[in-house]
Amino acid sequence: MFEQIQAAKKRLNGYANLTPVMTSRTLNQLIGAELYFKCENLQRVGAFKFRGAFNSISQLSKAEQARGVITYSSGNHAQAVALVGKMLNIRTTIVMPDNAPATKRTATEEYGATIVEYDHDTASREDIASELETRHGYTMIPPFDHKDVIAGQGTAALEMFEEIGRLDMLLVPCGGGGLLSGSAISAKEMSPNCETIGIEPELADDATKSFHTKILHSVKNPPTIADGTRTTSLGKITFPLVLEYVDDMKTVSEEVIIEAVKFLFFRMKLVVEPSGALGLAALLSRAVTAEGRVGIILSGGNIDSATMTTILNS
Amino acid sequence: MFEQIQAAKKRLNGYANLTPVMTSRTLNQLIGAELYFKCENLQRVGAFKFRGAFNSISQLSKAEQARGVITYSSGNHAQAVALVGKMLNIRTTIVMPDNAPATKRTATEEYGATIVEYDHDTASREDIASELETRHGYTMIPPFDHKDVIAGQGTAALEMFEEIGRLDMLLVPCGGGGLLSGSAISAKEMSPNCETIGIEPELADDATKSFHTKILHSVKNPPTIADGTRTTSLGKITFPLVLEYVDDMKTVSEEVIIEAVKFLFFRMKLVVEPSGALGLAALLSRAVTAEGRVGIILSGGNIDSATMTTILNS
Repeated sequence: MFEQIQAAKKRLNGYANLTPVMTSRTLNQLIGAELYFKCENLQRVGAFKFRGAFNSISQLSKAEQARGVITYSSGNHAQAVALVGKMLNIRTTIVMPDNAPATKRTATEEYGATIVEYDHDTASREDIASELETRHGYTMIPPFDHKDVIAGQGTAALEMFEEIGRLDMLLVPCGGGGLLSGSAISAKEMSPNCETIGIEPELADDATKSFHTKILHSVKNPPTIADGTRTTSLGKITFPLVLEYVDDMKTVSEEVIIEAVKFLFFRMKLVVEPSGALGLAALLSRAVTAEGRVGIILSGGNIDSATMTTILNS
Repeated sequence: MFEQIQAAKKRLNGYANLTPVMTSRTLNQLIGAELYFKCENLQRVGAFKFRGAFNSISQLSKAEQARGVITYSSGNHAQAVALVGKMLNIRTTIVMPDNAPATKRTATEEYGATIVEYDHDTASREDIASELETRHGYTMIPPFDHKDVIAGQGTAALEMFEEIGRLDMLLVPCGGGGLLSGSAISAKEMSPNCETIGIEPELADDATKSFHTKILHSVKNPPTIADGTRTTSLGKITFPLVLEYVDDMKTVSEEVIIEAVKFLFFRMKLVVEPSGALGLAALLSRAVTAEGRVGIILSGGNIDSATMTTILNS
């Protein structure tokens, strides 16, 4: 699987941003470790999701590309698929609930995607996407449970290891487990003694439970502010990868997620969305005990005015 | 004067952050030029002011350092002097009005400075600072009108030219003119055809008027959101330097300053204070016509919750 991440990195060369790794003396002193922040909030579309979308869509055959791609998402993956479609001149269809935030819908439409709405009370996005897939011959690019998507997401950690060398610990937000499993695979190869830890909100701790019990758990619409982690469960592909490559899973409270977003805002001058700040939240809450060289993937920076206002004033 | 900037750069080596230069495809397309953002919001204390404070204080004699330094400022310069004092183990005294924001006062105290308050209605900060200077033998480190401070501020532009090469235009926020004159001197040496343009809020256009009339104008407490530019006027040293080295001065409205801060937040995921966003504001409003390679100094990122909330919701 690591070879696929290496191949993905070559494919992304010149298309994805080589995002910077930032440091903060203040935080190093506070936490008592050397912290390295991989800034995927500065990736195209504002999140690591561009990597997986580009890596998967760019590998489709000419015939598949001519028919177009489809996905279901109301978040960063939707924007990533839409942008890649625009870049490669491929038609993209995004299935979104009729209660998706207007800003996310607009951003996705601005990249030229066709939005198909469904009634979030009565319909399932997977069913609608699957029906359209069959009817139009679209290729499905799922948000995480796809080997090319996972390989793409693993390039962020790979780049970080190539830039800064070995780590003692790597903290990665976990939603559906695409970024987490890709990162863990890169870590095992690039820095074999590095402990990779997945971080989830307490309110959406399905993957943590699944990891510890080795039985797949799920959650439904968890009310966490970290919207990127509201996925129902790990996937058929990501669950075994997480069990094999990830060393531990920890959870953090909503309060400390908010604290982490504020810390990044005021001290590091970075806009990071709540899901993207989970790694720092785990350090601030001491959910993980950091020592030595610690990598933190800031997975995205797409946050709307209302959420940021709430956070800044809480 | 350029030699002093080069010397300052050596002095700052290992103490100041070598701040990154960032780019945005979206903005390049929107503006129709190649934009390079020098991220002084990621400098220590969150603003370029660290450069001038360190360059001046580190050159004091042992005897001067033993007596301590003093300055008057309620903003980024105060924090910069306080941090440099802490780093070099020098006592720092900051004269602040009794209506200075609590957050700025706290940040300055956290670096170990002694705050001397004055009644903003009845007293002048310069008089109080000057009295303390005489009584205790402190050395005054003024916010901008000092050659070592100006030389320090000029290192930000120097670093940018060394990293990215020549520019056609350089946009620099203007308060008291320390950053602007230092940047213009670096530009003339490093990229002789580069046009350096100072940007001010319309509401605080004293330097623009002074530049165009060659007579020093002043403003008193201008009600601009860009608090870093609320200085009364250019200084005895900065005014002639601005006249000699700066190519033009332009102003921007409060509305477009707010738009620029939002753009940096949502599109570039950077926290930039209103004064720091003046260069981008001039591009967005077409106050300057950008062509070719354009450098923009994002001078700082210190913004409080209330101001950011106002901006995000306007």
